[in-house]
Amino acid sequence: MYRISKPTLFVDCKRVVKNIERMFTKARKSNIRFRPHFKTHQSLLIGRIFRDFGVKAITVSSLDMALYFSRDGWNDITVAFPVNILEIDKVNFLASRINLNLLLDSKDAVNLLSKRLLYKVNIYLKVDTGYGRAGIYYKDVDNFKKIISLLKNQSKIQLKGLLSHFGNTYYAKSVAEIRKIYSTSLNSLINLKSELMNLTDELEISIGDTPSCSVIDDFKGIDEIRPGNFVFYDYKMLSLGVCRERDIAIAVGCPVVAIYKERNEVLAYCGAIHLSKDSVNLNGKEIFGIPVKRLLSGWAKIKYGNIVKSISQEHSILKLSDNFMNSLKIGSIVFIIPVHSCLTADCMKSYITLDGRLFDHM
Amino acid sequence: MYRISKPTLFVDCKRVVKNIERMFTKARKSNIRFRPHFKTHQSLLIGRIFRDFGVKAITVSSLDMALYFSRDGWNDITVAFPVNILEIDKVNFLASRINLNLLLDSKDAVNLLSKRLLYKVNIYLKVDTGYGRAGIYYKDVDNFKKIISLLKNQSKIQLKGLLSHFGNTYYAKSVAEIRKIYSTSLNSLINLKSELMNLTDELEISIGDTPSCSVIDDFKGIDEIRPGNFVFYDYKMLSLGVCRERDIAIAVGCPVVAIYKERNEVLAYCGAIHLSKDSVNLNGKEIFGIPVKRLLSGWAKIKYGNIVKSISQEHSILKLSDNFMNSLKIGSIVFIIPVHSCLTADCMKSYITLDGRLFDHM
Repeated sequence: MYRISKPTLFVDCKRVVKNIERMFTKARKSNIRFRPHFKTHQSLLIGRIFRDFGVKAITVSSLDMALYFSRDGWNDITVAFPVNILEIDKVNFLASRINLNLLLDSKDAVNLLSKRLLYKVNIYLKVDTGYGRAGIYYKDVDNFKKIISLLKNQSKIQLKGLLSHFGNTYYAKSVAEIRKIYSTSLNSLINLKSELMNLTDELEISIGDTPSCSVIDDFKGIDEIRPGNFVFYDYKMLSLGVCRERDIAIAVGCPVVAIYKERNEVLAYCGAIHLSKDSVNLNGKEIFGIPVKRLLSGWAKIKYGNIVKSISQEHSILKLSDNFMNSLKIGSIVFIIPVHSCLTADCMKSYITLDGRLFDHM
Repeated sequence: MYRISKPTLFVDCKRVVKNIERMFTKARKSNIRFRPHFKTHQSLLIGRIFRDFGVKAITVSSLDMALYFSRDGWNDITVAFPVNILEIDKVNFLASRINLNLLLDSKDAVNLLSKRLLYKVNIYLKVDTGYGRAGIYYKDVDNFKKIISLLKNQSKIQLKGLLSHFGNTYYAKSVAEIRKIYSTSLNSLINLKSELMNLTDELEISIGDTPSCSVIDDFKGIDEIRPGNFVFYDYKMLSLGVCRERDIAIAVGCPVVAIYKERNEVLAYCGAIHLSKDSVNLNGKEIFGIPVKRLLSGWAKIKYGNIVKSISQEHSILKLSDNFMNSLKIGSIVFIIPVHSCLTADCMKSYITLDGRLFDHM
């Protein structure tokens, strides 16, 4: 394995390819568009793996990210974030060159956008099916109707459909609960669509969360899925039960700098600026990652009793089993499986493959 | 004020200068060395403000950060992290050029370092006075004695003193509790020193946390302080009672992208990749920052009832008062006071002064 001297984000490309293949195949079987969210990896090289599978449409979370990927030839991009009118120059630049899909969730946003658009864009109406973050609440049908009427007069804004993120699946307690959130939320979207179909010719349904997309096989009623996290998965997804341990495709390799045998703890050079400060509850305690042993060709399996107990800017304290403790000395490398791969990848800004090739990050 | 179109970290330089001046003066009155921690700002330009006050010695949290600041002429640097032996090449490079101070907390680390050192370094023994993160537990006097004996035979390693971080002050419930942690921890260090003084000629005491350094005026018994966060402070420090609101020197300016009047919430373009995911408990709820209004020349005062309620990769949901809600429309700029300025600065990677000058970040 590639030698390192400081915290380094490793990517297991074989797992990445399998994760993509699984989701790609699933989407194809349901005969729906696969528009993966690239905010998780933010990498041109990982993007090209998707392209090799035949993926042509992508999702991003900012206009800057749309610019980044458009420069690598991606020309059908959805910015899955209510449009930031202050970046209208980027909107116009992108709209002049690619098939740009934007999100709107108010009449005000339609009016602001229409005044300053120079080129044609497609838009999705963002629907809140109960997550309560962004979008128009699905029961507020009148609001949808008003916006659709307003859009009829816009020559540069083409309504494509309804888009939602069932983000409450991330807080589910079981796979059964994820399935329930999925079906309830999807029903809300389908009912909404049926109330609006007489006002417009076309109304796609686009959904996105990795938990739903991982556990649902039949995407009936849906036109497009936009999962992102699945490309790497992480400990959070494993604990939700939506991936297997062997699907987790990234881990941070980090140097052991001190060993405290008396408290079965190790100080690793790997902090909040590497892993992010995201945590998950394990047996009543918030933990910040799962330490595993290094292998010659990657990282070992998770063993019960090993956790990242606390985290500071550049430090983490690992609580380890006797067996794990005894395998380590100062200067050893430990791997940490992140709680939330999207944020860890964003913090780390680049990847090393297990054989030492450098992969870019935005 | 400088116009922005996406999340931007603003620094109020006047407040930075006042924060530095206050801590500098305090250290001078106690006749101790002021060795500020530069991990909070990680900026050459902010470093030069310290230099203008006459600061000559600094603290950093990684060897890379030591390299960064050494290139700007800093030549007395403590890396306040148990030395990472895998980066011995950087240690030797720095030790050949500057006065480099490292941390050790075990005999193993002494042995590993001594074998590969090419130039002389100073070291501090890291003492755990109860925080339980890194260092040798203060009661383990024998361990300190053994390490000091071992150091006697090392020509390239000069023992300078005992170094501790009273990190438990960050979890204190009141200023009185901070003072208590400070005096208890300092007493432990002073007692330890008295037990070790017959073994060595010199034994400085170096302490570092911003809460202690902010509320203590008389640093009797101490040779050096290493606070970092005080240069900006943040909402966490305000809630601990160790700074005043007018001392907080950074805030993230962020675009309003959607307004949800029915739930008194606003969607801001500013997420975990900008603020970090650090949180603080306010009235029983974890919050991720404090939204305040924009002013012509900076940001307004905190008003009760406005919080960053939740945060995703690039989104945050602000829960706002009616008054604040009514002042906003799509495209407005809101300021968010971070919970933890060190992590926010690390995420944002650059600063804009209130009049639009760009400040660097490592």
